[in-house]
Amino acid sequence: MNNISVYQSAFNKHLNLYIQSLNNRKPKELYEPIQYILQSDAKQIRPVLCLLATHLYQKNYKPSLNAALSIELFHTFSLIHDDILDNSPLRRGKKTIHTKWNVNRAILSGDVLLVEAFQLLSKYPSNVSHSLLKVFSKASVEICEGQQEDMNFENLNSVPSAQYIEMIRKKTAVLIGTSLQMGAIVANVNSSEQKKLYKIGENIGIAFQIMDDYLDTFGDTKTFGKKIGNDILTNKKTFLLTKSIELANKKQLSQIKKILQMPANTEKIEAMKNIFKELHIDELTLNTVKNIHQKNLKQIKSLKVTNNTAINILLQLSESLINRKK
Amino acid sequence: MNNISVYQSAFNKHLNLYIQSLNNRKPKELYEPIQYILQSDAKQIRPVLCLLATHLYQKNYKPSLNAALSIELFHTFSLIHDDILDNSPLRRGKKTIHTKWNVNRAILSGDVLLVEAFQLLSKYPSNVSHSLLKVFSKASVEICEGQQEDMNFENLNSVPSAQYIEMIRKKTAVLIGTSLQMGAIVANVNSSEQKKLYKIGENIGIAFQIMDDYLDTFGDTKTFGKKIGNDILTNKKTFLLTKSIELANKKQLSQIKKILQMPANTEKIEAMKNIFKELHIDELTLNTVKNIHQKNLKQIKSLKVTNNTAINILLQLSESLINRKK
Repeated sequence: MNNISVYQSAFNKHLNLYIQSLNNRKPKELYEPIQYILQSDAKQIRPVLCLLATHLYQKNYKPSLNAALSIELFHTFSLIHDDILDNSPLRRGKKTIHTKWNVNRAILSGDVLLVEAFQLLSKYPSNVSHSLLKVFSKASVEICEGQQEDMNFENLNSVPSAQYIEMIRKKTAVLIGTSLQMGAIVANVNSSEQKKLYKIGENIGIAFQIMDDYLDTFGDTKTFGKKIGNDILTNKKTFLLTKSIELANKKQLSQIKKILQMPANTEKIEAMKNIFKELHIDELTLNTVKNIHQKNLKQIKSLKVTNNTAINILLQLSESLINRKK
Repeated sequence: MNNISVYQSAFNKHLNLYIQSLNNRKPKELYEPIQYILQSDAKQIRPVLCLLATHLYQKNYKPSLNAALSIELFHTFSLIHDDILDNSPLRRGKKTIHTKWNVNRAILSGDVLLVEAFQLLSKYPSNVSHSLLKVFSKASVEICEGQQEDMNFENLNSVPSAQYIEMIRKKTAVLIGTSLQMGAIVANVNSSEQKKLYKIGENIGIAFQIMDDYLDTFGDTKTFGKKIGNDILTNKKTFLLTKSIELANKKQLSQIKKILQMPANTEKIEAMKNIFKELHIDELTLNTVKNIHQKNLKQIKSLKVTNNTAINILLQLSESLINRKK
């Protein structure tokens, strides 16, 4: 059976050629951090979705390799700058660029990566390049907005869950939707089909992020790979917390407020988990994810595709991203 | 007589509409710093050159307003991030964004401005948009490289003057060349004429920057507007210093080294000025600027333009940028 590894290996080959090409470019102080971060172990969901989207409509998916690379470079740029904003020491198990070198190098290598992402779009014929530029720049603006909204949330006591969903839509889901749409643009698919694909990707992204919130609190330490409860420890406004505040009665609300003021320790995690369970937030969250997923499956099945293998991979991928343990 | 104020006022009207449009966009934390910096008093040489380049070939220069805005937004993005890198407290007489707010706001508002610059290119028809994207992204990469090279120079004892010229070409001149070329692209001018215009702009940029170095040391305090000798005080590798090191005999070279180690005071300025004069660096610098300018005038006169008023403005502008006291 075919699977996503075909796209992954094609993309990695293309990515490695790009990384190698940076050897010839100067000043090395600018390109060294880019090579360093691109060589780390990334999930590459976005470029895979881009290649897959092209493959839905035509046998040869390779024409979208540059669009996929553009998306991955943009995503990497956003990680470099977000890591400065969040003061994160580690990324993908390695030191972040601003930690390994300094903030200046991280700002500037992020900038050039963002520019390179746009430059790659110019490698397509005019009409394709033009459509790609439109959707990609629109997405890029929204991603910056989502990042700022996320930063704003840190200073707020509570955030409505609808606003939280809108933030993750912009910060995470938009680029996943755009990855699919860009693959469709390269395959010269009409605009209504493009938009349907975009929406499918956006829903995958939202479901993925809500699932992330679920796993951070209710995941299994053995399979999750990260420490459980980190979001609770840092008072992060997750889907779980924003929904809890909306559903809590007076007594529960005052309990939540107290827990938010507790120091970051195991008791805090347990106390918040108990409130979540009392409010059935765990079930609610899983049901929300399932609902988004079920509606999305219908949309996926209604696509006017010619390649059944590819559509099955998209269905599986969509399933695996939400039925995951890590 | 016609002059650049026609382009300036058309551009300012367009820029103000853009600034106003940001009122409707959220989150305000992202767009407020952009409105703030765009409302300051900028020279707008680049957008003027872009409009002027279109006007060389067609009566209506307004179609290049969005290209001009794109260039100005990019330039502003680069100032926001450079001010973080250089730790500059002031820009255009106002607090820099990272000083008025914080580094995070400055990184993110710079990022979105860079994206908006690219997004504006998508407002043109496909073939124009495609050509604009090619030249604009190429220039953007070089500008990032120039900025990194400039930062590298700070840690070096000496820099060959040719390397210095290459750095200012990338950091400053490329965007001036690109401004003219983008105006020509909007006017659908052929590629060889476009390249000639690019080169003219690049030469203007290099001459402009060398003149800047000259004025920082040999300018008149009354007309220059800034304190004289700042480059000497900070041991900046300018055209004057890089040339001096190349032309100095053994004795002069050891004097220069001593001066570079002096504390930042008036004596240091006087001592370096004396060495410069001994080596006739002041005349050499002015002659270099004049030579570039003279060669450039020939190129400007060889352009296949239809609008004599516009070509005269370009000639005057080119003249005024190097025959300046501030």
